[in-house]
Amino acid sequence: MKKNIVFIAKSLDGFIAGKDGELDWLNSIPNPEHNDMGFNNLMDEIDAVVMGRKTFEVVSGFEGEWPYSKHVFVLSNSLKNIPNTLSEKVSLLKGTPQQVLSRIHNKGYYKLYIDGGSTIQNFLAEDLIDEMRITTLPILLGGGFSLFGDLDQPLDFDHIKSKVFLGQLVQDWYKRRR
Amino acid sequence: MKKNIVFIAKSLDGFIAGKDGELDWLNSIPNPEHNDMGFNNLMDEIDAVVMGRKTFEVVSGFEGEWPYSKHVFVLSNSLKNIPNTLSEKVSLLKGTPQQVLSRIHNKGYYKLYIDGGSTIQNFLAEDLIDEMRITTLPILLGGGFSLFGDLDQPLDFDHIKSKVFLGQLVQDWYKRRR
Repeated sequence: MKKNIVFIAKSLDGFIAGKDGELDWLNSIPNPEHNDMGFNNLMDEIDAVVMGRKTFEVVSGFEGEWPYSKHVFVLSNSLKNIPNTLSEKVSLLKGTPQQVLSRIHNKGYYKLYIDGGSTIQNFLAEDLIDEMRITTLPILLGGGFSLFGDLDQPLDFDHIKSKVFLGQLVQDWYKRRR
Repeated sequence: MKKNIVFIAKSLDGFIAGKDGELDWLNSIPNPEHNDMGFNNLMDEIDAVVMGRKTFEVVSGFEGEWPYSKHVFVLSNSLKNIPNTLSEKVSLLKGTPQQVLSRIHNKGYYKLYIDGGSTIQNFLAEDLIDEMRITTLPILLGGGFSLFGDLDQPLDFDHIKSKVFLGQLVQDWYKRRR
């Protein structure tokens, strides 16, 4: 079954990065036992990851192991190649959300983790998101890069469940009401 | 003890009214038993309500009983008088958030319910909000009047609790970390 899932953290005021791209606030809540808040469960559940170029550049700059156990499709009209170390794990794709989805489905990947602010906004604008798992941190950033963007039409979701992590983060699961 | 509490509903993308001021989506989730989601408990807890002119105009246009059991202070630089029917329940105040708070405290009102988008944003910009109880509806409006505005500095809160109402609305309580 085809399914596009968003899994992302945001501030209380809806930002996924600060005014200057800051991401440090994402680690501001002590997490001594390295609770992954459902990330590895998501990895087990999906067939592939779809992300934008900016997110790819941030993630490939992280120290430590490559975090994705499934194939990653990076959407970019400008990127020409992938670093050699990642060439078996990552592919480049360009086109509209529908075009890239169609190509990914044709390769046999159906359950997709959609990541990155612009990519999520572009997919939502085409009503292509089926589920969202959004973790909210208890901070007002007061500006930055917004998770959600403008839509021509409102989109209704159903609330599935909420879970509190580390006593501070609220993760809400939503499913598109169709 | 002085305390300023926000109690408000927002869309999943952080709007308190739609692009054309729409509020109908606030009643889009069936509520056959008229669950007030904590509104009357809040009324019992506070000494007075503080709201902006726009919110006052919306609320005083509602059919049915006046919803506030405590005195309401309306912040406005333009409004000259209050309708006769509300003159004992509502007072007008003008000035900066600090000035109006000082005048309200001097009248013996300490625990305040701060309501209305602009008023909440102005109070947050001066770091004058102590608690927020925010109810999120499972809808992406895609545009409208935002609950939160720009801040010079991020503001940290502590998550207190989360509660799901009507199987669809998530109410999160936050307390300013000082």
